Order: sequence, then C-alpha cells, then structure tokens
Amino acid sequence: MSPRLAIVGFGLIGASLAASLKRVGHDVEIVAVVRHEAAADEALAAGLADRAVVGAAAGVAGADVVLLAVPMLAMRGMLVEIAPALAPHAIVTDAGSVKGRFVEDARAVFGGPGDGRPEGGAGGGSGGAGRLARVVPGHPIAGREKSGMGAADATLYAGRRVLLTPLPETDADAVETVAALWRATGAEVECLSPERHDRVLAATSHLPHVVAFALVDALRARQEAEQIFRHAAGGFRDFTRIASSDAIMWRDVCLTNGAAIVETLDDLEASLASLRQAIATGDGETIEAMFRRAKAARDTYVD
Amino acid sequence: MSPRLAIVGFGLIGASLAASLKRVGHDVEIVAVVRHEAAADEALAAGLADRAVVGAAAGVAGADVVLLAVPMLAMRGMLVEIAPALAPHAIVTDAGSVKGRFVEDARAVFGGPGDGRPEGGAGGGSGGAGRLARVVPGHPIAGREKSGMGAADATLYAGRRVLLTPLPETDADAVETVAALWRATGAEVECLSPERHDRVLAATSHLPHVVAFALVDALRARQEAEQIFRHAAGGFRDFTRIASSDAIMWRDVCLTNGAAIVETLDDLEASLASLRQAIATGDGETIEAMFRRAKAARDTYVD
Repeated sequence: MSPRLAIVGFGLIGASLAASLKRVGHDVEIVAVVRHEAAADEALAAGLADRAVVGAAAGVAGADVVLLAVPMLAMRGMLVEIAPALAPHAIVTDAGSVKGRFVEDARAVFGGPGDGRPEGGAGGGSGGAGRLARVVPGHPIAGREKSGMGAADATLYAGRRVLLTPLPETDADAVETVAALWRATGAEVECLSPERHDRVLAATSHLPHVVAFALVDALRARQEAEQIFRHAAGGFRDFTRIASSDAIMWRDVCLTNGAAIVETLDDLEASLASLRQAIATGDGETIEAMFRRAKAARDTYVD
Repeated sequence: MSPRLAIVGFGLIGASLAASLKRVGHDVEIVAVVRHEAAADEALAAGLADRAVVGAAAGVAGADVVLLAVPMLAMRGMLVEIAPALAPHAIVTDAGSVKGRFVEDARAVFGGPGDGRPEGGAGGGSGGAGRLARVVPGHPIAGREKSGMGAADATLYAGRRVLLTPLPETDADAVETVAALWRATGAEVECLSPERHDRVLAATSHLPHVVAFALVDALRARQEAEQIFRHAAGGFRDFTRIASSDAIMWRDVCLTNGAAIVETLDDLEASLASLRQAIATGDGETIEAMFRRAKAARDTYVD
C-alpha cells in the first residue's frame, strides 16, 4: 500500500506539490484536504488528488504524512484541529514562510507536559519520542503571484530549494521522509535552524515583498498615477510583480516575522538615506560606488 | 537613395534599433558610429550596420537622422562634437533616459544667439527654422541588464513605448520621421513634455532602479550575505534584476534627474516608514490595507 499524504490547504503551494508528485509518478496516495465540496470536486476533476476530503480532522485520519499549506496565522488552529485525528506515527510538516512561528505553534499544541515527549515519559508517539519527534517544519522557496488551486504547477518546485528546520526532538527518519517527497518534485532540500531561516528569508523574500507593496502604494497615491502605471516598462513590471501577491499571506508573514523584517528594513532605509543624500547633492562618486557594489554582488551570486 | 541613419553609440540601445530595422527591412542606410576599429568590425560582421565609422563627426557627416545613444552626461560633449559636421536638414534625436537635461544640452549647444533660431533671424537651418527645429528628444522605454553591442536584440522595442518630447521649435516633419523609425521596430510612439516625462520616469524607472541597487547593497553588507543570495528565489531575482544594470548609466540618470527622483524617493520613504511602524506594532489591519491597495493598483494597471 502506498503511503498516504494529506495536503491540508489545497491552494497554489499544496496543489502544486500534488501536481509535481503526480507528474513524476511518485508512490504516494494524495488526499486533498479542503473546506468546501466544490474544492474537493475541483481537485478530483483536475486529477490532482486520489481522494478529497472536506474538513481537516477527517482529512488527516490515516495519513502517514500531513502537509499544512495554510496561511501562517491559521497554522496553530489547524494543529489543534488535527491533533486528535493524527495517527501516532504520522509526520506533520508545513509550507509556511516563517519557521520560528511554526515551531512555537507546534510546541504550544504538541509540546505541553504529559503529551508524550521523552522528558514527559508518557511515550504516546512513535517509539516513545512523542508528537514533536514527528514534526518537520519546512518551507519551499517557490511561489507565484497567482494563488489558488487553479494556479497549480507541476514544475513549481523543480530546481528550487526547500528548507527544513527540524527540532532537536525530530526523528531523523521523519526528516528524511519529508525531504524525499520534496526531492521527488525536483527541489533541492537543505536543513538549517528556524532562526537562521527567518533572518535569511526576511532579507531575500519578506523585505522585497514589503518594499514592492510600499512602492506601488506610494505611486498609486501620486497625481499622475495612471500615467505612471501606463508607462511602466520591463524593469518596473519585474520589480513590482510581487506586489500582486496575496495580501493576507504577506500580512501574516509581517505579523509572524516582524522583528527580522524590521531589522532588514532598517538596513535598507539607511542605505536609501545615504543614496538620497548623494543624489540631492549630486555626489556622483558615492552613487556610482554603491551601484557598482550592488551590481557586482548580484552578478556574483544570482543568475 | 535610402535615407541615412547614423547611430552614435552602438551599445544595447543603438545596436538593437539597428537590428530591429534590419529585421523588418526598413528602407534606411545604417551607419554605426563607434569609438574603436574593433567595434566597427564587430558591427559590420554582425550585419547590424551598412557602414561603420570611427569618430562622431566623421560618422554623422551626410546623415539625414542622427541618433545619440550615449550616457546622459556624454550628450552635451557629443552635440558639440557633431555640430559642425551636421547637414542643415539633419534631424538629431537621442535615446537618453532624462529629457529635461537633453533639452538643456541641445539649447546650450544649438540655441545660442546667432545660431539660426527664428528669433535670431540668421536662418542657418532648414527653412530658416534653425538647428533646434531639427531636434527631437526621445526615449525608448526598453532596456536590459546586459549592455553592449553583443546584447543587441531585434525585438527589444516590439510592443514597447517610445516617448518623444519635441521642443516648441521642433518641425512636425522631424517628429514624424523619428516616430516612423521607432514604429518600424514595433514600438508605440507617444509625445509629452520633457517635465512630465521626467516625473513619470522618475517613478516608474529611476526609483525602482535606485531602490534595487540600495537593497542589494544593504544585503551585501550583512553578515549572512552569501546565504542570503544563495537562497534568493524567484521574487528576489525579479525584484533585484535591475540592480545588475549599468552603474554609469544609472549614476548619470541620478545626476540629471535628481530632483524628481528625490521627490518620489521621499514618497516611498514615507510609505516604508508607516509600514515599518505597522509591522513593529503588529498592526495587521494597516498592513493588510496597504497590501490590498497595492495589489489592486498593480493588477489594474500592469499586465
């Protein structure tokens, strides 16, 4: 019998994982866990899932691996909802953008005293290691401005990185099972600490989104907004594409990784302030030096 | 005999115009005006020009239309250099990113008293309208991070906009001749005032470039810079692609359109400051409202 993967939240991220696993014929039974019958029908009609279940608790029953692909602020409630229905050996992983918060959520829901953690001695989990031993926080570094099941893409993760941030308690076999699923999509898997993850992602992903939203909002308010957007060319299109991303998802990222985002935003504001000064005073040398450093860094590191 | 177009500065912008006109078989003789023999040989070998001439004055002699595709700060010197060699009827246009400055340059070089302007009464230009009557400031809204002749692209302007900012003195036939050249590349041509152009471009093009450079420079200085860039995904790649643009070109843009850039940078900084405040205080409502406004604006206006 194939192992069963329940994907809770069957939007762009969840449905693209399903599509990717189907594409390569990975040996897994996929359960789409959704909130409405219409979504269940859509998932089955699109051939993205072997089964579709309405409701999280019913959906995760009997699953070997559960992937939570819901907004960051919905994670804790979802963990509470599925906790009673999880098989003891079931691995719980997620696809949230902020890992410190998911770790907090998992500890809050699964990690209380008497929950079966080794130090608790209750031994409720697989091999007595407890529920946290089966938790593998994860984050696929891929996305798109479009959201929803209709945007599912069987190649979304090919060549991308998936970051896992296991807890000290997490079983090695649970990490390996989740890593193997992602590798099957063509992604490269890497492990790091949740803190490191959140600092790095604040800089590479959260800050650019925040700036793109702020920039478009500032331009929108200008007198000549319509002409500005009408004349927007390639650079602007690329630069602001991420401002078309899902507002709720990114609000949640800001609310759950605020400290790291503010820190990197302060770095940017210092950099902008010195550039503004150089532009205002016509200091070409300072401007050119900054542009050259930036170009060299980007050309060196990014394709 | 085909009209002769001399393209001074045969880099990405100039060579792409040549390639585009060749692609559609436009009736024009193209002269690549370059600084070194090697570039002349390269232009001819690539089939991008009918003739290649080293040196601006020699290159523009006998031309019906002269396009200056050199950095903004090189424009004035170039106008001085070619002035004595221009045929009286020759149209001078450019591809610079800042139009107010090019207009200043043209007035400084061609518009002095006794230069043949109508009010001077000297009548040195075509039909007595003077040299300024043949000046058509222009700006193709297209570009690429790569620069140089090797990056020439015969489809660079297809579907893009070219903005022309004629002077009050400019002959209508000169505007139409330049517009027809750009239309042949598949571009859409639009006329507006230099001041309006510079304000709109400050917002849609100059500001995004400045911010991308500043952002990459700020991240480069961080402790975990290497990991940051290594984990950079799609959004970051797009967002910072323009930070790989030519440093000199963008320094010149900052030096020649500083006031408009500073104004729009101040708008962005105000927007970032209020967002920073909302993130620091966990004010999800303000964050979400801004993100929704930005997403709606971008989705409405930009493809």
